[in-house]
Amino acid sequence: MTATDTFLSKWADMAALGSAAAVLSWDQETKMPPKGQATRGRALSVLAGLRHQQMTDPALADAIDAAADLVADDDVLAAQVREARREVTRASAIPGDLARRSAETRSRALNVWQQARADADFDAFAPVLAEIIALSKEEAAALVDAGIADTPYDALLDGYEPGATVEQLAPLFDELRTELSPLVRSVAESGVVIDEAPVRGEFTEAQQGELGRVIAAAIGYDFEAGRLDRSAHPFTSGFGHGDVRITWRSESDDFRSGLLGIMHEAGHAMYEQGLPESLAGSPLGEAVSLGIHESQSRLWENQVGRSKAFWTWALPHLHEHLPGTDGVTVDTLFSALHTVTPSTVRVEADEATYNLHILARFEMERQIIAGDVSVAELPDLWDATYDELLGVRPDSVADGVLQDIHWAMGAIGYFPTYTLGNLISAQLYDAADEAVPDLSGAIASGNFAPLLEWLRSNVHVHGRRYSASELVERATGRPLSSTAFLTYIRSITKEVYGV
Amino acid sequence: MTATDTFLSKWADMAALGSAAAVLSWDQETKMPPKGQATRGRALSVLAGLRHQQMTDPALADAIDAAADLVADDDVLAAQVREARREVTRASAIPGDLARRSAETRSRALNVWQQARADADFDAFAPVLAEIIALSKEEAAALVDAGIADTPYDALLDGYEPGATVEQLAPLFDELRTELSPLVRSVAESGVVIDEAPVRGEFTEAQQGELGRVIAAAIGYDFEAGRLDRSAHPFTSGFGHGDVRITWRSESDDFRSGLLGIMHEAGHAMYEQGLPESLAGSPLGEAVSLGIHESQSRLWENQVGRSKAFWTWALPHLHEHLPGTDGVTVDTLFSALHTVTPSTVRVEADEATYNLHILARFEMERQIIAGDVSVAELPDLWDATYDELLGVRPDSVADGVLQDIHWAMGAIGYFPTYTLGNLISAQLYDAADEAVPDLSGAIASGNFAPLLEWLRSNVHVHGRRYSASELVERATGRPLSSTAFLTYIRSITKEVYGV
Repeated sequence: MTATDTFLSKWADMAALGSAAAVLSWDQETKMPPKGQATRGRALSVLAGLRHQQMTDPALADAIDAAADLVADDDVLAAQVREARREVTRASAIPGDLARRSAETRSRALNVWQQARADADFDAFAPVLAEIIALSKEEAAALVDAGIADTPYDALLDGYEPGATVEQLAPLFDELRTELSPLVRSVAESGVVIDEAPVRGEFTEAQQGELGRVIAAAIGYDFEAGRLDRSAHPFTSGFGHGDVRITWRSESDDFRSGLLGIMHEAGHAMYEQGLPESLAGSPLGEAVSLGIHESQSRLWENQVGRSKAFWTWALPHLHEHLPGTDGVTVDTLFSALHTVTPSTVRVEADEATYNLHILARFEMERQIIAGDVSVAELPDLWDATYDELLGVRPDSVADGVLQDIHWAMGAIGYFPTYTLGNLISAQLYDAADEAVPDLSGAIASGNFAPLLEWLRSNVHVHGRRYSASELVERATGRPLSSTAFLTYIRSITKEVYGV
Repeated sequence: MTATDTFLSKWADMAALGSAAAVLSWDQETKMPPKGQATRGRALSVLAGLRHQQMTDPALADAIDAAADLVADDDVLAAQVREARREVTRASAIPGDLARRSAETRSRALNVWQQARADADFDAFAPVLAEIIALSKEEAAALVDAGIADTPYDALLDGYEPGATVEQLAPLFDELRTELSPLVRSVAESGVVIDEAPVRGEFTEAQQGELGRVIAAAIGYDFEAGRLDRSAHPFTSGFGHGDVRITWRSESDDFRSGLLGIMHEAGHAMYEQGLPESLAGSPLGEAVSLGIHESQSRLWENQVGRSKAFWTWALPHLHEHLPGTDGVTVDTLFSALHTVTPSTVRVEADEATYNLHILARFEMERQIIAGDVSVAELPDLWDATYDELLGVRPDSVADGVLQDIHWAMGAIGYFPTYTLGNLISAQLYDAADEAVPDLSGAIASGNFAPLLEWLRSNVHVHGRRYSASELVERATGRPLSSTAFLTYIRSITKEVYGV
């Protein structure tokens, strides 16, 4: 074996452990009987431990170093080495004792948070949240010490969006705040009330599921390399090449959440299905970042799934599968798919207000990690931030500071990737629209291949070869900005609300 | 940590890897999309490699030795040490190179066998079968060298039925041959033709599945700790405490195979669901042997599922779920569930002829491992053995020497456990019948708890604490023999065929 083979073979073994863990997690959310919980937790913990052990094994670092000596003009190998070193550095930066305390605390915090949210009792969650924050700071400091990033918050962010920094994100969020807050207010003041009847009715899960399958298959999700199952919360889980699964849930009286949820997850999954087989199990054989991942889901959900072109093709399928939708037209549907309503709950937010929810969290997280706000002050800070950005105040902490699972999971620095996804999806779609002749005509005729092909060759095929910023710039010809997204949103509100 | 804790904690980590592998295999057979095969194969192979590495790690042997020093009067710990050493010795006996060659050959042989059987072409399978046999002999020799058993065939047998030997099995099989061959001939000569109409009709999978679920739940399969899914071949897969799953398949025109298949797998699964939580993840926390496992499945399938008592309770459920069965009575059903017909195919064999199929394989396997028969001679030997034991000759090698997957999997020595299961099931049922007041009355009224409780406390609760022979003797008060089984079969053929 060459040094490169040794390096890649060790990595493939780790990827196989990751694949196994992903199967176990997917099963846990979709198939596992309730009494299997303890056994499954133990198996997942053993797999995670072994993966960490292999990732921090000096023999792996040696294998990477030996491969690095062979890089010369091999750009792909250079990128393999770069990504491997990045992951090894992150994994090695956290001392074992800290990782164990952190895993234990997160697991405990999840249970406490669930109960606290059910009881709308922030005080019950506050002590463990304080622990989570202290551990996150400790981790962030260790990561800064290891040279991962210059500041603690950037170090956490980097775990979800490698290379992203507050310096890069803050101007993007500033533009969003400046443009979206007044826009949302104008929509509210427009007096226009959208008729949501076109998306409402009584639809069985079977009916919605059939429609979802037809649409997922049509846009390019490969059911031979995946499957669709029910779960409490929709997600995508990739086990590696040839097996990328999606889940969904439906509402019986409104088809938007089920159907657009399937298109969202199919977008995530088509990304992973499009990662090249030649990179499977290697450091480059994965998604670039959560932001890029989210751009793929949002593009199919929003730029495609809410468009008039899409519904020109999809409407007969809607009529066929969902009884009572005969009177629905592309125009009435378009409005119902683009209602804008400031609300307190992120997961129910529309395209226009969603990024303000994220902005709120981005601001608060930076203050939390900087130590500028105490845990006790968070509920009031939350409410005040919502009031300022969205003009609404939650009735209860359950719909306020306790609404998200992320902090309970210790996932501080995760939220900004949602907004990155929204911005990138709009910018990528514009670039595809420029590159593909009559893209909307193709979509209107049910031909999604040109769009998927463009994404395959401009995004998916590269795996992790380029950073998120680099990838966006290569694919779209310009650095990431909020321009495409804001232009998109303004065109929507103009058409639907006349503002 | 005490030495015992260290030992058991290392073992629990290995059990967790085994649990993960079981989840992956179950998913592969029930849910995995076709393109996921290569990724899954890689993950399973990495998990198997890690498990082998941990099993043969000198640190584990040291931990076992240290725990052995603490045994004193602790019978359970003594049994834990005994079983751990047994497994470690087996795993360590096979050199890594041999294990790798063997795994590679088996995987290849499976593909070759599938095609050869489809083509009814033994010559296509013969070369790889010769390799399989040579590797099995090599493994058997290594196991004999390690002191696992005295003879090569016993060493292979021990992998499925720890402690079993030809010396123990041969007299049992001799009795079966002496009694069953003439009995089967008498049945054929009786001229009695059973009306199979009661089990035939047109039944959807959904109808049969609902009935199967009702019955599985009624007899004690815990759906909160398991689930029922479809697969190409029915199987049970235990992932550890709280998660033991079963699969089934149905025939649209005959409900026997689907329903009794579910009862069979539920029997396997109730055994694993009944292994005590206190032993979970320890050497004692598993099934004793395949023979004991099969006794549990056969008991619920045959002694219960084909009995008049059972159908006294189950008949209304049959009428309710399977349309067209209104005219079926307990008596007509009893006959249809006990047809005896010598055939060439094991998996379609009835209770009376089944063990003759096994006997044929047991005899041939011993000759194969002893080197008394060449691969080229096997098809003729197969046909002659069937002619002698069952009075039938296969029309094609596809239904002859190529019918079973076992040899292609390298599973030589596996078949006898099926017959052990049949013998043990009859002996256990008789013992339960003696111990439980009015057992058949309880069953006739749908109360299966007394039988399950008896099995729980006499078989399941012990895990691997006793050997199979010891367990049978403790549970039934006498050594394993063919008496109970032969008495059972004779009572059936007497009633149904008058012979």
